[in-house]
Amino acid sequence: YRIACLPGDGIGPEVTRGAVTVLEAAAAAYGFALEFSAHPVGGAAYDAAGTPFPDETREACDAADAILFGAVGGPQYDGLPWEHRPEAALLAIRKRYDLYANLRPILLYPPLRDASPLKNEIIGGGVDFIIVRELVGGIYFGEPRGITTLEDGTRRGVNTEVYTDAEIARIARMGFTIARGRRRKVTSVDKANVMEAGRLWRTVVDEVAREFPDVEVEHLLADNAAMQILRRPGDFDVMLASNLFGDFLSDEAAMLTGSIGLLPSASLGAAQNRLGLPKGFYEPIHGSAPDIAGRDLANPLAAILCGAMLLRHSLGQEEAALAVERAVVRVLEEGFRTGDIKVPGTAVLGTAAMAAEVARRIG
Amino acid sequence: YRIACLPGDGIGPEVTRGAVTVLEAAAAAYGFALEFSAHPVGGAAYDAAGTPFPDETREACDAADAILFGAVGGPQYDGLPWEHRPEAALLAIRKRYDLYANLRPILLYPPLRDASPLKNEIIGGGVDFIIVRELVGGIYFGEPRGITTLEDGTRRGVNTEVYTDAEIARIARMGFTIARGRRRKVTSVDKANVMEAGRLWRTVVDEVAREFPDVEVEHLLADNAAMQILRRPGDFDVMLASNLFGDFLSDEAAMLTGSIGLLPSASLGAAQNRLGLPKGFYEPIHGSAPDIAGRDLANPLAAILCGAMLLRHSLGQEEAALAVERAVVRVLEEGFRTGDIKVPGTAVLGTAAMAAEVARRIG
Ligand SMILES: CC(C)[C@H](C(=O)O)[C@@H](O)C(=O)O
Ligand SMILES: CC(C)[C@H](C(=O)O)[C@@H](O)C(=O)O
Repeated sequence: YRIACLPGDGIGPEVTRGAVTVLEAAAAAYGFALEFSAHPVGGAAYDAAGTPFPDETREACDAADAILFGAVGGPQYDGLPWEHRPEAALLAIRKRYDLYANLRPILLYPPLRDASPLKNEIIGGGVDFIIVRELVGGIYFGEPRGITTLEDGTRRGVNTEVYTDAEIARIARMGFTIARGRRRKVTSVDKANVMEAGRLWRTVVDEVAREFPDVEVEHLLADNAAMQILRRPGDFDVMLASNLFGDFLSDEAAMLTGSIGLLPSASLGAAQNRLGLPKGFYEPIHGSAPDIAGRDLANPLAAILCGAMLLRHSLGQEEAALAVERAVVRVLEEGFRTGDIKVPGTAVLGTAAMAAEVARRIG
Repeated sequence: YRIACLPGDGIGPEVTRGAVTVLEAAAAAYGFALEFSAHPVGGAAYDAAGTPFPDETREACDAADAILFGAVGGPQYDGLPWEHRPEAALLAIRKRYDLYANLRPILLYPPLRDASPLKNEIIGGGVDFIIVRELVGGIYFGEPRGITTLEDGTRRGVNTEVYTDAEIARIARMGFTIARGRRRKVTSVDKANVMEAGRLWRTVVDEVAREFPDVEVEHLLADNAAMQILRRPGDFDVMLASNLFGDFLSDEAAMLTGSIGLLPSASLGAAQNRLGLPKGFYEPIHGSAPDIAGRDLANPLAAILCGAMLLRHSLGQEEAALAVERAVVRVLEEGFRTGDIKVPGTAVLGTAAMAAEVARRIG
């Protein structure tokens, strides 16, 4: 299997290295071979090649079965025009491989409960849901867009939220399919009370729901969803949302697990790899954290769990994926921590040592 | 002073009655006269007159110095076309009086700390900020909008996020002016990294910031803001946001106070009343809560605190406003609660009795 590694900026390289260590242990234990190649992306690529997503990197991604991404961004790039900014690489990759489904598991690890900002009464029953966010449509890409200056000097900024029924149906189907493998409940989020795009969203989700009579569906307005995530996080199973609503809901929800250093994401789409599986894109949600970069302080567990998702979705290696996830839980239960999630009585490890502990527990 | 009361649906009438009781006590104590008139709105108006915002109600609002609103909505109206739905009255009123600034204080009352879903480590230092949300622009009103069916049968839902520099500048000025009377910090929220409307937002906020060199300004991306509200709620003073971002951020932030039954809102605009002050619109954020309506169970404190905001912003009666706010704090400190915020060791009162306790402590 060919994996394109795009370590990127900040802590990206060190956490990606951790993920590779663990993936190699999984490959050895489960008897398959992984071929990794590393390519520049984001600010690192801009510095080297003048663009955040160079041709060489694009070609490597084209040829790969899956893309393992670190993180991009840093304060030194904030002043650049958008198309040169590190984050532009993300949008380019999403669009190029039509990665329409962003899966964001929101899982509270019981040994980390104290790190959650929420009280135990709220999270005590467990939190385990997955946000399924549409990733290549909506206001992120809709036309017309731009800033124009009218004749009288008025400046006007415009973006367009636009969804077709087909775009909504495919992400809804992804959500319902995932719910079938879980607790069979989909919570769809929109602002159907003020947005027609949201009304169409709700209509099409209900149409797709009829194909899945065994899955329960509820609709929440986006503002109410932002509240309910704090009131009854344990009630959700699959939360389905547009690109924009999924963006902030997944970050809000990530926060309540108390451990964003542990949360992976997978972006899947129409493009298939040589195995006939989705050529997925796997990215920890934590970002580049320039303040701690290069100091062996970062938590590699999100990147490692990205590796597990990659094994599952792009390589079909479910057993190996489960082994990685179990190894992570075991390491946490045994009291190993990185600095971001340390509590009294636990052993604090560096990035590399944490990855090694996980790798040792595989197979 | 003329106050148009629009009690609306669900618990709207009973909480509004509570607010009127308290406002009358304040008027008596501070030596001014209030003239209240009640008018149908929302579902109640639709049932009576076939429209959620009847002419009679509109005329009364036109003539009033301020509008005291209860709540609208109920499950029986969910199937109606949007223009007949109770919530349509809200958008009509916002637009009619150009109520461009929605002020939402996010205040954690120390005696209610245990009701917050957040841990004490996070909220222990106190939470006291105000969200200043743009209320008559952006994607709520932008054109083009609608659902169309293309020739090939594709359905397409469209909404438009659009802001001019003047629209951004006036809400920004409101935010900075409010910050000057507080802790002199504005946190402006956008998605400037993916939306041009957000880039213009950020540019204009920075331009306005130059008029307020004594006020600190920070910019947060909306997804990050959704996280930071849970991580460092005590750090915010004034949070400035567009219509759509303000919608969910204010509900998320409200939730963390643990007492949405206590949170008022004021919507102010260009329209002035006979006093030369903004003809404000005052609405508790809790909604109509049909499940407990008519049973004297609802918490009237949000409506009462709306009354305080009304005294301050539309009538210029700052002393009376402070007296109402102090009376609410005193009642809570003395251990009086409504059912939604009760904890062991407190005395649970009904809606009317709670309002009476507040009224008794004024002046
Ligand atoms: C970097 C940015 C463009 C991106 C987004 O808004 O989608 C990020 O917030 C994310 O969620 O992956
Ligand atoms: C009822 C609805 C139109 C409204 C909004 O989205 O503005 C509500 O959520 C609010 O925040 O006042």
